[in-house]
Amino acid sequence: MVILLKENAEAKKLQKLMEMLEAKNVSVKMTEGQHQTILGLVGDTTEIDIEQLHALDIVEDVKRIQEPYKRANRKFHPLDTVIKVGDVAIGGGNFTLIAGPCSVESSEQLCTVARGVKEAGAHLLRGGAFKPRTSPYAFQGLRGEGIKLLLEAKAETGLPIVTEIMDLSQLPLFSEVDVIQVGARNMQNFELLKELGHTKKPILLKRGLSSTLQEFVMSAEYIMSGGNPNVILCERGIRTFETATRNTLDLSAVPMLKQMTHLPVVVDPSHATGLAKLVAPMSYAAAACGADGLMIEVHNDPQHALCDGSQSLTPEAYAQVVKGVMAIRECTASIE
Amino acid sequence: MVILLKENAEAKKLQKLMEMLEAKNVSVKMTEGQHQTILGLVGDTTEIDIEQLHALDIVEDVKRIQEPYKRANRKFHPLDTVIKVGDVAIGGGNFTLIAGPCSVESSEQLCTVARGVKEAGAHLLRGGAFKPRTSPYAFQGLRGEGIKLLLEAKAETGLPIVTEIMDLSQLPLFSEVDVIQVGARNMQNFELLKELGHTKKPILLKRGLSSTLQEFVMSAEYIMSGGNPNVILCERGIRTFETATRNTLDLSAVPMLKQMTHLPVVVDPSHATGLAKLVAPMSYAAAACGADGLMIEVHNDPQHALCDGSQSLTPEAYAQVVKGVMAIRECTASIE
Amino acid sequence: MVILLKENAEAKKLQKLMEMLEAKNVSVKMTEGQHQTILGLVGDTTEIDIEQLHALDIVEDVKRIQEPYKRANRKFHPLDTVIKVGDVAIGGGNFTLIAGPCSVESSEQLCTVARGVKEAGAHLLRGGAFKPRTSPYAFQGLRGEGIKLLLEAKAETGLPIVTEIMDLSQLPLFSEVDVIQVGARNMQNFELLKELGHTKKPILLKRGLSSTLQEFVMSAEYIMSGGNPNVILCERGIRTFETATRNTLDLSAVPMLKQMTHLPVVVDPSHATGLAKLVAPMSYAAAACGADGLMIEVHNDPQHALCDGSQSLTPEAYAQVVKGVMAIRECTASIE
Amino acid sequence: MVILLKENAEAKKLQKLMEMLEAKNVSVKMTEGQHQTILGLVGDTTEIDIEQLHALDIVEDVKRIQEPYKRANRKFHPLDTVIKVGDVAIGGGNFTLIAGPCSVESSEQLCTVARGVKEAGAHLLRGGAFKPRTSPYAFQGLRGEGIKLLLEAKAETGLPIVTEIMDLSQLPLFSEVDVIQVGARNMQNFELLKELGHTKKPILLKRGLSSTLQEFVMSAEYIMSGGNPNVILCERGIRTFETATRNTLDLSAVPMLKQMTHLPVVVDPSHATGLAKLVAPMSYAAAACGADGLMIEVHNDPQHALCDGSQSLTPEAYAQVVKGVMAIRECTASIE
Repeated sequence: MVILLKENAEAKKLQKLMEMLEAKNVSVKMTEGQHQTILGLVGDTTEIDIEQLHALDIVEDVKRIQEPYKRANRKFHPLDTVIKVGDVAIGGGNFTLIAGPCSVESSEQLCTVARGVKEAGAHLLRGGAFKPRTSPYAFQGLRGEGIKLLLEAKAETGLPIVTEIMDLSQLPLFSEVDVIQVGARNMQNFELLKELGHTKKPILLKRGLSSTLQEFVMSAEYIMSGGNPNVILCERGIRTFETATRNTLDLSAVPMLKQMTHLPVVVDPSHATGLAKLVAPMSYAAAACGADGLMIEVHNDPQHALCDGSQSLTPEAYAQVVKGVMAIRECTASIE
Repeated sequence: MVILLKENAEAKKLQKLMEMLEAKNVSVKMTEGQHQTILGLVGDTTEIDIEQLHALDIVEDVKRIQEPYKRANRKFHPLDTVIKVGDVAIGGGNFTLIAGPCSVESSEQLCTVARGVKEAGAHLLRGGAFKPRTSPYAFQGLRGEGIKLLLEAKAETGLPIVTEIMDLSQLPLFSEVDVIQVGARNMQNFELLKELGHTKKPILLKRGLSSTLQEFVMSAEYIMSGGNPNVILCERGIRTFETATRNTLDLSAVPMLKQMTHLPVVVDPSHATGLAKLVAPMSYAAAACGADGLMIEVHNDPQHALCDGSQSLTPEAYAQVVKGVMAIRECTASIE
Repeated sequence: MVILLKENAEAKKLQKLMEMLEAKNVSVKMTEGQHQTILGLVGDTTEIDIEQLHALDIVEDVKRIQEPYKRANRKFHPLDTVIKVGDVAIGGGNFTLIAGPCSVESSEQLCTVARGVKEAGAHLLRGGAFKPRTSPYAFQGLRGEGIKLLLEAKAETGLPIVTEIMDLSQLPLFSEVDVIQVGARNMQNFELLKELGHTKKPILLKRGLSSTLQEFVMSAEYIMSGGNPNVILCERGIRTFETATRNTLDLSAVPMLKQMTHLPVVVDPSHATGLAKLVAPMSYAAAACGADGLMIEVHNDPQHALCDGSQSLTPEAYAQVVKGVMAIRECTASIE
Repeated sequence: MVILLKENAEAKKLQKLMEMLEAKNVSVKMTEGQHQTILGLVGDTTEIDIEQLHALDIVEDVKRIQEPYKRANRKFHPLDTVIKVGDVAIGGGNFTLIAGPCSVESSEQLCTVARGVKEAGAHLLRGGAFKPRTSPYAFQGLRGEGIKLLLEAKAETGLPIVTEIMDLSQLPLFSEVDVIQVGARNMQNFELLKELGHTKKPILLKRGLSSTLQEFVMSAEYIMSGGNPNVILCERGIRTFETATRNTLDLSAVPMLKQMTHLPVVVDPSHATGLAKLVAPMSYAAAACGADGLMIEVHNDPQHALCDGSQSLTPEAYAQVVKGVMAIRECTASIE
C-alpha cells in the first residue's frame, strides 16, 4: 500500500498516522520530494481499511498494491483447488460439463432433459427451482417442489445436481443438493455468503453483472473465510453498453481469474449471450482459453420453456456442442 | 408489444401464436410486407413473457412498447404518492432531508451526529447497523446493537430512523424502525422485496449499481405488488468506466423516474461520488432538477469514521449544505 | 509514481532501472519488505512512459500518483482561465449561454432561431454545418454553405458563432468562426487537436462518449501544449448501460473538472439526454453545481428539424429555461 | 419500423405523417387499441430518419426493426466477402495472421520483427508509423519515415503491410501501403471514412471503445457506400468498468458480426487485454469462435519497446501462439 501525503502535512498528524500503521504490523518507509511525500507500506495490509486512510486530512491519495484477498490468492496457494462432487472432480485439469433447463417445470421435462444431457456427456445436472425474475408477474419457479424433482432426476440418472439459492432461509431445503449456486444478483449478498461459508457444500458463485474481478474474488473470500474452501467461480457475462447480446461475455476473465486465484473457473455462455446460436462458438472459445467447465442451458422444447427458452439448446444440439468442446480440449492439451 | 416474424413463417405456427396471444386478452393486428410481417399487440401485455416469444422459431424479434409495470406507473396513478413517516411527509412537493453516519459506531457518536443533523434541519436520521462491505475483513457493523442505538437516538431527538436490512431473517429486528432501506446490492434480492411487500413499512429502495431505470421501477413493483405502496426510490450513482468518482451520479434519472412513476425520488450524493467535497455541489444539483429529498452522510469526526469517512461531512458542513439546498428549492419553486 | 518490484528482482536489472529513472531527473527511494519492494518516484514524472515501465520483467505494477497534465493543471495555475470571445467572457465566474439549432438548415431557419435565442439572452450562437451522423444515408449538413449562413446570422444579430470542425482539412473555412467545436467523436483525433493548438481560436472541446476525465483533460493538454490556451471543456453525457436517456449526463464531472483544471466547463444537456423535456431540469442542475455555461439546442420548428428535433427546444421554451437558470445562478452566488 | 402514437393523436397530424411515410415508399398499417395506436412500416426504411419521427408531437416512441445498413448486410449478400491482399486472401474460410510491432522504431527493429513473424507464419506485417497517444508528451511515431521503413521491410520479406492512418491529409503517404488501418478512436471519423470509400484499398476498421456492433457496421457501411467494398472488421476490446484488463475483449462480437455482415472479422488480443500473458489464451479463444484472423503485437525486445511493450510477444512466443492457433483452427474445421 502506498500513501501520498498532501503538501505541508502537519508533523503531528503524520506522527500519529505512522504510529497507527506500525500498530498494524506493517513497516513504513517515507520518500520525500520537493512537493510530495510518499509512504510505502510493506507487510500484510489486508486488514487496513483504505477508506479510513482516505478520510485523513493529511492524505491526498492511497493506492493498494497488495491484493486484499488471502485464502483465494494463488500466491499463497499455488496449486489448483480440486473440488469433489460425488465422483466428479472440478478444477485441476478436469473439464466439467454442467447442463439442464433454466427452470425446473415438471418431472417429465426434467427427466427428459436429464437423460439427454447425461447421454451427451454432462457430469452435473442444473435446474432452477427458485428463479430470480425481473418482473413480479413472471414465473417464479417451482421452489421447494422443484428441488424435489431435481432429487428425483438425480436418483434416476445418477447426476449430482446444481441449483440456485435465493435466500438463506431456503438453506434447509438444500441439504441434499450437491452444489449450491449463488446467482449474479446475489454475488454481494454478504449475509448469504457468510452462511454458506459455514457449510461444506461446494458453492458455484456467479459473477455479478457489474462486479470487477477483484470484487468477485472478494466474494469467494467471504465464503472461504467462513471455513468453506469449495468455491467454483462462474463467468456469465457483464453489463456493458452493448445490446446485441444480453450481456458481454468477458472471456479474458478466465485466464485472469486463474492467475489471481487457485479456484476452478467455469463459463455460462447461455446467460452471457442470451442467444442459443451463440452458445456453441462461445463454448468453444471458453474451452480454448482455459476454462475448467461449462454450464449450459438445455431444454427438451425450448420454444415452450417457461423461462429463457431463446438461449436454450435441445439435447441434440447440446450433444454436438459437447463433441466440439471435447475436441478443442484435447487440442489445447496438446498445445501446452 | 410488437412481434416481427421471420420471412416465410409457417402458417400453422403463426395460427398457434395468434391463438396463444388472444387467449391473453390482447388484440393482434398483422402488417404484411414483401419481406416482413409485423404483429402489433394492443392491450395489457404486462403478463406476456417476452422471452418466451423470442424463443419461438417463427419469431425474429420482439419489442415491448408498453411499460411492464402497473402499480408504480405514473400513467395509471397520475398524482404523486406522499409517504408519511411520523410527522414527516415524503413526496408530493415536500423536500426531505435524511442524514446521519454511514455506520453506527457508538451511542455517543450517534447522538452527537443526531443532534447535529437535527439542528441543521434534517427530518430523518440514517445510520448503518448492518453494513455490506466488499471485504470480509472490514468492519461489518454493530448489527442488532446498532439498531438499539438508533432507537435510543430517535428517543432522544425525535427523529424517525432509516436503516438498512441485509437479509430477511433480520426483519424482526426492524419492527420499530421507521423506514427500511434496501441497499444497492440487494435491489434485485427478490425474496427480500417480496417479504417487504407484506409489511406496511416505508421502504427506501436504492438503485443497483448496474440497474436500468426500468429494472429499478420493476423492483419497486415487486414490493408494491405484495401490497405495500410505500416505496421511496433513491438514486445513488451507477457503475461506469469513470474512476474519478466512486460511481457516476445519474441525475437525469430524477426527472425520468418522476415521469415514469408517482413515487418519491431522493438522491444520495455521498455514496454516488465518494468524495466529501462533491456533496455540496451535487446536493444543489439534485435539488435543482426536482429531487424530493437528499440522503447525506454526516459524521462528527470523519477522519476516524469506521467506514466511508472520506465521503462524510461534519455537522457544520452539513448545515451549510442544507442552507444552500433550501435556497435552491425556494428558487426552483418560484420558477415553475 | 510508485513502482512495485517483483519478488527477487535481479540486482543488475534494478540498478539499470534506477539509472534510467535518475536520468529523467526524478529522485527514487526504495522501501524493502520481506516479500515486496516499492520504489517511490518524486519529481516531474509527466514524461515517464508508464507502459514502458510495465513491460520490464522486474516490475510487477506501476501506479501514477502525480497527474500527467501540466498546462491544464489547476495546481500550477490556480486562477480560473477566462476566455474572451468578442465582448463575451467565458469562465472566471461568468455564465455563458450558447444556443442554436443542431444543424444549419437554411438562412431563414437560422436567422429566426438566432433572433429568438438572442432575445432570450444567449451570448453565442451555435449551429452545425458539418454534421457527424452515424448513418451515411442521413443528412450530412450544409458544410461550407452552412458556415456562410452562420456568418450571415452573426452579421445580423451580433452573436459570435460556435460550429463544429470534423476534419483539419476544413480549417480554412473556419477563419471567421469565433469558437471551433471539437465533437465527442473527435476528442481523441490527435492530429486535429495538434493543429488546433497552433491556432489562437477558442476551442470548445466535447468529452468523448467513453472518455475518462483524465483523458478529457489530456486532450485539452494536446491543444494547450501546441500553444493555444483557449480551451473550453464541455460535458455532454457518457455512454453507459442505461438506455432511458441517450447518454448519461455526468454532472459530477463539473466540480471534478473545475478542481483538476482552471479551464471553463460548460454542459450540453440536449445531447446528453436526447429528450427536450429533460433539458430544463438538467440545465438547472448544471447551473447549481457550478458549470460556467450551457449549450442548448433550439429550433424554431423542432418537429421538422433535419436532425435531433426530439431534443430541441423552441425559442419560447428556451427563454423559460434561461430565466430559471439565471435565477439559480443568482441563488448559488448568494450561497457561496 | 414501428411507430407508437400518443393517445388522442390529432387526426390531421396523423394524416400528414402517413403521407410523409408513403412518400418514402414504405407501406403503413395501423393497429388501433383502446389506449394505443401502432403504425407498422414495411419496406426499405434505411433512409427514414428515426430522430425526425421521434420529434413529432403525436409520436410516443419509434422502434427500428429492420437493420439500417444495406451493403454490409448479410441478408442481401449471403456469401462471405473475400478480400485479396497480394497473394493473401482474407475471409471466406481463410485464417489471416497479422503481426508486428506496435510502433515502427527503426529499420533494424522492424526487419528483425518482420523476419521473425514471417518465419512464424504471419501473412501480413503490421507496424504503427502514426501513433495515437493519450499524452502529447508520449512518443508520437516516426510518421512518414515509419511508412518508408515498412515498405523496406515489405521489400525484404515480401509481407504486405498494414498501418494506421490518423488523418485524411496523410492519405498520399499510403499509396503503397497494402491495408490501411482505421484506429478505434477514428471509427466514427466520418470524413476519413468517406474518403477511404473512394479508394479501393482494403481497410482494416477497428471497433471504437464504446461502439455498439450496429454502429461498427454502420461505419463499415460509410466506407462501402462510397464504393469500396474491401472492409475488414477488427474487434479489439470495449471499455467497461473492469480494470484488470486494459479493455474487455468482446468475443461474442465475432459470431454476431459474422451473422450481421458478410465481411471478414479479425481479433486483436494485444490491445484488448494489454497483457502479453493473455495473448495466447485469447488468441486460441478467438480462433475457436470463428474469427477470420488475428492481429498480434510482436516486438524483438518488448522491455524496451517505445510503446505498449507490456502487451507485446517476442517472435519466439508468437511462433508458439501461431502453432496453437493453427491446431485449434484445424480442430474447429473438423467440428463443423
